[in-house]
Amino acid sequence: MDKKILMAHGNGGELMGTLISDLIVDIFGKESVQLDDSAIVDPGKGSLVFTTDTYTITPIFFEGGDIGKLAVNGTINDIAVMGAEPKFLSCGFVLEEGFEISSLKKILQSMKRAIDYAGVKIVTGDTKVVENGSADKIFINTSGIGVMRDYSFRNKINPGDAVIVNGTIGDHGISIMAERNKLSFSKGLSSDSAPLNNMLLSVGEKFGKSVRFVRDATRGGVASVLNEIADNKTFSIKILEEKIPVRDEVNGVCEILGLDPLYAANEGKAVLITDPEKAEDIVKVMRTFPEGRDAVVIGEVDLDFPGRVYIETYVKGKRILPLLQEDQLPRIC
Amino acid sequence: MDKKILMAHGNGGELMGTLISDLIVDIFGKESVQLDDSAIVDPGKGSLVFTTDTYTITPIFFEGGDIGKLAVNGTINDIAVMGAEPKFLSCGFVLEEGFEISSLKKILQSMKRAIDYAGVKIVTGDTKVVENGSADKIFINTSGIGVMRDYSFRNKINPGDAVIVNGTIGDHGISIMAERNKLSFSKGLSSDSAPLNNMLLSVGEKFGKSVRFVRDATRGGVASVLNEIADNKTFSIKILEEKIPVRDEVNGVCEILGLDPLYAANEGKAVLITDPEKAEDIVKVMRTFPEGRDAVVIGEVDLDFPGRVYIETYVKGKRILPLLQEDQLPRIC
Repeated sequence: MDKKILMAHGNGGELMGTLISDLIVDIFGKESVQLDDSAIVDPGKGSLVFTTDTYTITPIFFEGGDIGKLAVNGTINDIAVMGAEPKFLSCGFVLEEGFEISSLKKILQSMKRAIDYAGVKIVTGDTKVVENGSADKIFINTSGIGVMRDYSFRNKINPGDAVIVNGTIGDHGISIMAERNKLSFSKGLSSDSAPLNNMLLSVGEKFGKSVRFVRDATRGGVASVLNEIADNKTFSIKILEEKIPVRDEVNGVCEILGLDPLYAANEGKAVLITDPEKAEDIVKVMRTFPEGRDAVVIGEVDLDFPGRVYIETYVKGKRILPLLQEDQLPRIC
Repeated sequence: MDKKILMAHGNGGELMGTLISDLIVDIFGKESVQLDDSAIVDPGKGSLVFTTDTYTITPIFFEGGDIGKLAVNGTINDIAVMGAEPKFLSCGFVLEEGFEISSLKKILQSMKRAIDYAGVKIVTGDTKVVENGSADKIFINTSGIGVMRDYSFRNKINPGDAVIVNGTIGDHGISIMAERNKLSFSKGLSSDSAPLNNMLLSVGEKFGKSVRFVRDATRGGVASVLNEIADNKTFSIKILEEKIPVRDEVNGVCEILGLDPLYAANEGKAVLITDPEKAEDIVKVMRTFPEGRDAVVIGEVDLDFPGRVYIETYVKGKRILPLLQEDQLPRIC
């Protein structure tokens, strides 16, 4: 068995019995490989949500996950935050000639665990191999189809609405940054990569349109998502510093490097805007899921600074959280 | 305005008004850019076809097209050959830092022309930028959703059925090979990249289940597709050398380089297996479309060499066309 990806591994498909399709059958199961380049799927009634993302993260293996887990969970989350049930994923690999096959195997196994955990299926795929130096190890595109539920997470936001986050923020971004810079004091950091579909479906089913809006807080972090929500609106969003869940390890790295976890990437966190009357009940339901263990209300919608996001600090000072033009890190997902 | 892609162009989305999203709005129109990472789409009743492909072709611009046109048409064709109507595409770019923005613009314009011509929509997208040397200029993933029609192009194949191809074969593969090798005698060669959806929908509507099977003949060419169809079956497939349409320019390059157009890639050609009684009528309908101008019956299904594909030569000799393990060219699509 070859140890490294060769240009020839990119040729042809199932019938040629190449190493890559053998690996995929081995890990994903026989039903994952079709004669056709396309899959026939039956998502059921309702409008669909369709999304795509290419993952180019470096390093490809990191504390808490790898590029494969990220590629599955990231696309699931893009669908789940729309108030839809993710059903089917596609998967397109670009592999660099010379990439270790053992690493590809680990990534495929990780993707398999992720789809099984989330309850979605990879139904169609594609693999391209490019010459050494023409790509950086492995890029993965996942596209996904979900089915809209009767409720929708795109409803009218009102002053007084609560702002909820499902756990500690900045874990992914700060963990990757520490790993890349080989920071010796970064022990205990870990990416939060997780699928949010089951938690969000449960919340949607129980609370329906009391959930006004949901968005995953990936690149740019919680502060950027809140800015997108408030942009050009008549309301503002206030968050309370004392309520924002941040792991000690993340705070430690942030303080030393002068970073702000509010702007750091997450891969398993969403911001929910909800009816304030239902907020504590929603938090309770979220906490029954591992992904929502540390769910908490962190703020509210008000009218004090229309179109802006601001933080009330421990000492009751107020500070605008602007929309940053630049991310803190490239190739974070 | 910057002339080259910078790492910063990969940051953030619509709200940050980056050059890339401005370009996309400019070319694809305002409705193409949503606040959300996902699109809500309504394909209508019926099972769906879902497919994905990543395009890594080099060179990215070539006679008859470019990587953008290929990425649109290739994914449309994967759906159309299933007997489905392609409706929605996603589009994921990986851009190399330093890539010329003027080239990106040309590619986007080409994609826009391709989707308009084919009558499909790009509804969701993603752009990642990686460091210089971490990718080769531009890779494009397109995934697509189509709606199955009542007829299906996956029916039982019977001895006697006709084999149809919609025009000259090997144009794409031989054209790219000539271009890469800067062959001076390659004048007049051009990729055949074209969307087959409208032609195939028309054939499906008029002839329904008289169309047994359709597959686009991309990597590996017509010979490989026919081998996939015949593999493990009780029938064989015979094609007639005198019927196979090949452009003189393609034949010329093939003779000099010792290549076989039957194994060369196409990007706008499909093989149809049909009821022999209807074959000539089907060809007539195909010829009313530019993509089917040179459609012709090239062979038939028989029982002479079960599981195999063979060619009857001009002098009535018979030669097996085996399934090749290796493509003639890497990065052909």
